[in-house]
Amino acid sequence: MKIAVLPGDGIGPEVTRESLKVLDALSLPQLTLFEGDVGGIAYKRHGHPLPSETLDMARAADAVLFGAVGDPECDSLPRQHRPEQAILGLRSELGLFANLRPAAGFPGLEDLSPLKPELARGIDLLVVRELNGDVYFGEKGERESAGGREGWDAMSYNEAEVERIAHTAFRAARKRRKKLTSVDKANVLETSRVWREVVVQIADQYPDVELDHMYVDNAAMQLVRSPGQFDVILTGNLFGDILSDQASACVGSIGLLASASLGERQTDLGTFGLYEPIHGSAPDIAGQGKANPVAAILSLAMLLRHSLGRETEAGQIERAVANTLTGDIRGADLGGTATTQEIGDAVIGNLK
Amino acid sequence: MKIAVLPGDGIGPEVTRESLKVLDALSLPQLTLFEGDVGGIAYKRHGHPLPSETLDMARAADAVLFGAVGDPECDSLPRQHRPEQAILGLRSELGLFANLRPAAGFPGLEDLSPLKPELARGIDLLVVRELNGDVYFGEKGERESAGGREGWDAMSYNEAEVERIAHTAFRAARKRRKKLTSVDKANVLETSRVWREVVVQIADQYPDVELDHMYVDNAAMQLVRSPGQFDVILTGNLFGDILSDQASACVGSIGLLASASLGERQTDLGTFGLYEPIHGSAPDIAGQGKANPVAAILSLAMLLRHSLGRETEAGQIERAVANTLTGDIRGADLGGTATTQEIGDAVIGNLK
Ligand SMILES: CC(C)[C@H](C(=O)O)[C@@H](O)C(=O)O
Ligand SMILES: CC(C)[C@H](C(=O)O)[C@@H](O)C(=O)O
Repeated sequence: MKIAVLPGDGIGPEVTRESLKVLDALSLPQLTLFEGDVGGIAYKRHGHPLPSETLDMARAADAVLFGAVGDPECDSLPRQHRPEQAILGLRSELGLFANLRPAAGFPGLEDLSPLKPELARGIDLLVVRELNGDVYFGEKGERESAGGREGWDAMSYNEAEVERIAHTAFRAARKRRKKLTSVDKANVLETSRVWREVVVQIADQYPDVELDHMYVDNAAMQLVRSPGQFDVILTGNLFGDILSDQASACVGSIGLLASASLGERQTDLGTFGLYEPIHGSAPDIAGQGKANPVAAILSLAMLLRHSLGRETEAGQIERAVANTLTGDIRGADLGGTATTQEIGDAVIGNLK
Repeated sequence: MKIAVLPGDGIGPEVTRESLKVLDALSLPQLTLFEGDVGGIAYKRHGHPLPSETLDMARAADAVLFGAVGDPECDSLPRQHRPEQAILGLRSELGLFANLRPAAGFPGLEDLSPLKPELARGIDLLVVRELNGDVYFGEKGERESAGGREGWDAMSYNEAEVERIAHTAFRAARKRRKKLTSVDKANVLETSRVWREVVVQIADQYPDVELDHMYVDNAAMQLVRSPGQFDVILTGNLFGDILSDQASACVGSIGLLASASLGERQTDLGTFGLYEPIHGSAPDIAGQGKANPVAAILSLAMLLRHSLGRETEAGQIERAVANTLTGDIRGADLGGTATTQEIGDAVIGNLK
């Protein structure tokens, strides 16, 4: 099995290093790692945030372990050279259509949530965000209009696109509490009307899963008012961008949350995917040993589960993380003094 | 001065009745009220959620006092006959391009917020949402695609549209804490790129206002993590729909929040506008005297301020509401037993 490792910018390299230490400690057989440049660092070295060598390496792999991209020094570059284009490029080039973002509080760490403890304790949801369509990848540009220059973007979803992400979400709900909330804006958008019709159709194949629909404005409200009502949230690319970040913020511990972006291609033991912590490159604390590697380590667990068929080891890592988090070792983000390395070491110590 | 009163569906009529009682108690000279049907009730009586008589009445008025629309009995109607089309129709036909939604906790009622009290106490923001453009009013439809039926919607903003809403927001910020956060998704959308460029240009005319930009995903996160950082949030129609509801949910007291939707037309003493509580029609409690009329009464205060130039009376109502809320009279939504009418009476009692 081949893993492409793309540490990227900011704290990406230091948290990825800890994931790799954990992977090493598991001594899995027949694993080959390749490392490539992505993001601002790739732009500086190769003139492009997603060099073709990096893309080829990712394509040839069974899974991609991704750090973070984003570099303030690149802020004034034209959009196509900016670090975030690397992640958009990987998603489209690799056909990563299904973004899974679990958001759940960690026992004992409810206090990290900005919500009242009784609400925070109830959060245990999974956002399934479509990642290859919507207004992200439609035609777009600038044109002249009666009101001067006009920026425009085409939003759309077709049946095939909604079907495949709906299947992903229903299957995920089956493995959880069997409740699926599809979020759209069907009272205004034609894109959403088709979205909803297809989701309703696919639901016939999952009679054991309870489906409901919510408008995105109401969902944003409910995520704050009573997040415990959600199990799986299925939504499009744009609404998913907003709601998944909102859900993470409700949990409160941005440094602890992981994500998977899955493609259609099957590997020998699972599904091809890209795995990344949701925290981003955090340039303000990069290189200081202050970053929490837990999100990166949990991304590795998702990689082992979804792409390498290693459920046992994934669970082992997740338990080790949970035990570490309830212990004495705390990083700067949790009010402690443990360094990135020390937290990584502690997780490894708890692996068994 | 003429006010068109459109009570609408659900709890709309009963909360509007209390606003009118308050208006009556102020004994303002030269005021004429007209009442019209809108929403589900209008569909049932006239076959259309926004009958042309209602639209004409609104057009002829200096301000519109709006209750709520939405009726579960209309859920299965084709979209163009559904109650919410009435509000979309009013916005576009009357050119109501600027939606102002203040979100602030009421002293003593921080506990209504799902956020921790120290965060809830800090919330005092105004969302300025563009209301006549974006993906709401672009071309839209269904077409065949390689992936089957495809729903599509065109998103756009031109310079003139952004300029006028930016002026509204900068002027509002000037009267508040002089901080403006423009929210967009300029790293992905051309619509947002133009949006941001225009906002930056207009900012030159308001050197006393501090401007920053935030991506919508980050804004959704920050609204939960530290809502106190915001003064005025300026954003487009779609993001504004989501963020303004999220902001209301953070305050917690949906039954207490009002909104104004302003047009370009100047009245003798202010700006033409439509005023509505943000709570919606709440069909589950309609007709039971359980609805809190405070949001409707505060909408009347906004009407007096923005359309009738009655700042004194607006402030008078707002103080009366604040005094009522800190008193003993509590409605069902605040854990008390006071009826809609009793709360209205109490506000009138506190007017002086
Ligand atoms: C960096 C940006 C283009 C990206 C997105 O909008 O998808 C990010 O916010 C995310 O959610 O991964
Ligand atoms: C009813 C609906 C069309 C409307 C909107 O999306 O604008 C509502 O959510 C609002 O915010 O007033």
